Amino acid sequence: MTDSPLTPRLSDALTVTSQQVNAELDRLLPVSDSPDARVHEAMRYSSLDGGKRLRPFLVMQSASLFNVAEAAALRVACAIEMVHCYSLVHDDLPCMDDDDLRRGRPTCHKKFDEATALLAGDALLTKAFEVLANPATHADPLVRCELVADLAHASGGQGMVGGQMIDLQAHTLDLDVAGITRLQQLKTGRLFSFSCEAGAVMGKAHGELRLALRNYAHDLGLAFQIADDILDVEGDAAEVGKAVQKDADAGKATFVSLLGLERARAQADMLAEQACRHLDPFGDKADLMRDVARYVVQRRS
Amino acid sequence: MTDSPLTPRLSDALTVTSQQVNAELDRLLPVSDSPDARVHEAMRYSSLDGGKRLRPFLVMQSASLFNVAEAAALRVACAIEMVHCYSLVHDDLPCMDDDDLRRGRPTCHKKFDEATALLAGDALLTKAFEVLANPATHADPLVRCELVADLAHASGGQGMVGGQMIDLQAHTLDLDVAGITRLQQLKTGRLFSFSCEAGAVMGKAHGELRLALRNYAHDLGLAFQIADDILDVEGDAAEVGKAVQKDADAGKATFVSLLGLERARAQADMLAEQACRHLDPFGDKADLMRDVARYVVQRRS
Repeated sequence: MTDSPLTPRLSDALTVTSQQVNAELDRLLPVSDSPDARVHEAMRYSSLDGGKRLRPFLVMQSASLFNVAEAAALRVACAIEMVHCYSLVHDDLPCMDDDDLRRGRPTCHKKFDEATALLAGDALLTKAFEVLANPATHADPLVRCELVADLAHASGGQGMVGGQMIDLQAHTLDLDVAGITRLQQLKTGRLFSFSCEAGAVMGKAHGELRLALRNYAHDLGLAFQIADDILDVEGDAAEVGKAVQKDADAGKATFVSLLGLERARAQADMLAEQACRHLDPFGDKADLMRDVARYVVQRRS
Repeated sequence: MTDSPLTPRLSDALTVTSQQVNAELDRLLPVSDSPDARVHEAMRYSSLDGGKRLRPFLVMQSASLFNVAEAAALRVACAIEMVHCYSLVHDDLPCMDDDDLRRGRPTCHKKFDEATALLAGDALLTKAFEVLANPATHADPLVRCELVADLAHASGGQGMVGGQMIDLQAHTLDLDVAGITRLQQLKTGRLFSFSCEAGAVMGKAHGELRLALRNYAHDLGLAFQIADDILDVEGDAAEVGKAVQKDADAGKATFVSLLGLERARAQADMLAEQACRHLDPFGDKADLMRDVARYVVQRRS
């Protein structure tokens, strides 16, 4: 293991995407001077300048594999980030995880209030679909419809929200590794899959190449979640930027509680390598996506 | 005024649409036998068998003006109803209006819990876009994209959610009639407009006919809201099916507090008649929509 889990080329590329995403979100989520300004401020607070932008990065990288125009891919990247940010805002609410800290800053309902956070989350989710349906996202309306349907499926009751529902009951469900895997595939895996397949959808690629991205996303998402469970046990709140040890305190089964720390770490490493191999058909054009897979299991926040 | 504000033909037609919408929502929102079942139950609880289905009815009627296939229109009708129901579920939460009663039954968070209600609302909103983007909604993907974009715009931060944000601050804003009108156009008017214009979008009608529906929806939505304010003052909780006198108790300006009861009633009646006249280009094919306009200002619940 090197000192930094980020290769210099991945670090540089992530920075470029973050800057692009911030600039585009700033444009897509304008400030308002009418009495509804507060919800727009809360939307911007919850989505600008935050996080690693991993999902947008995966959209941009998968799009580049199919030579999709960068401006179009950036809109899809922002849509997925809006959905990710809405889910964090709602997840942090008192009736859910009741978190005060997110990315080292007060959570949206702490900065504003609960009602504003609820509405800001709703509006971010809604805006994501508006962005995807707009002609600027892709010239072919069939592709835009597919993006809308895929994102809705990935994030709704049969995807992310379904996973959150199971997670809320996890302390009563006595989940085994298969159950936790299913939970995580819904809760975080589906959005990773959307991000990785978005390039293929925009590039109208089907069959083997799309399947390769789906398999990559599957292993990446799981590796990401196991690493998250490890960070929850080992991490330092200041470095991670949010409360840690929450799952253990809540008595929830995690990959670490079920497998033990060493086997969990080995499993995450194995999944990361497997994810990389799924990218073989793309050759070295997919090197940054391979870097991502190795990074997510080595990160410290 | 007759004994019943419903003409027999409108009463029959509303019943037919309600039954169609219930059956289609039942199909679109299946029960689940996995651990995420609870959120699907809450989605069904909050959307099946409830309300007058006014927005779906307007979709079905406007679609019939352009001879749109009924099965396709029904999907759009269900999508708008999902968005309407999500907004009610989130509106009823303790951090918003904190209501225990909705349509004479416990609100979603009272029947389930706050987290489940939050997620059920999120999932209903998401599902609406999934339904619209699906090929079964319209053969032309450009029309499906337009429906997605229009519904997102009508319901998001620059539409319904923006209106809710203003409403939350209404007691501090000292709104005049123009301000209340603007608030209500966002909060309820935009979804009425989407419902009324959906038929024109599906029928690919632009220009005069679409504008006629937009103008009808504008006047209808405002008439509806003034009538709501009147019901809030005059209504009986048991008959209305939800708490009344809430606005007055909250010290919010309403059309009634600003105009007085008599002028508010006259204004609502005038708007209803004006709404009907906008439908002149459609001749007697639009009679049921005229009945709706007269009904909303005479209803008692």
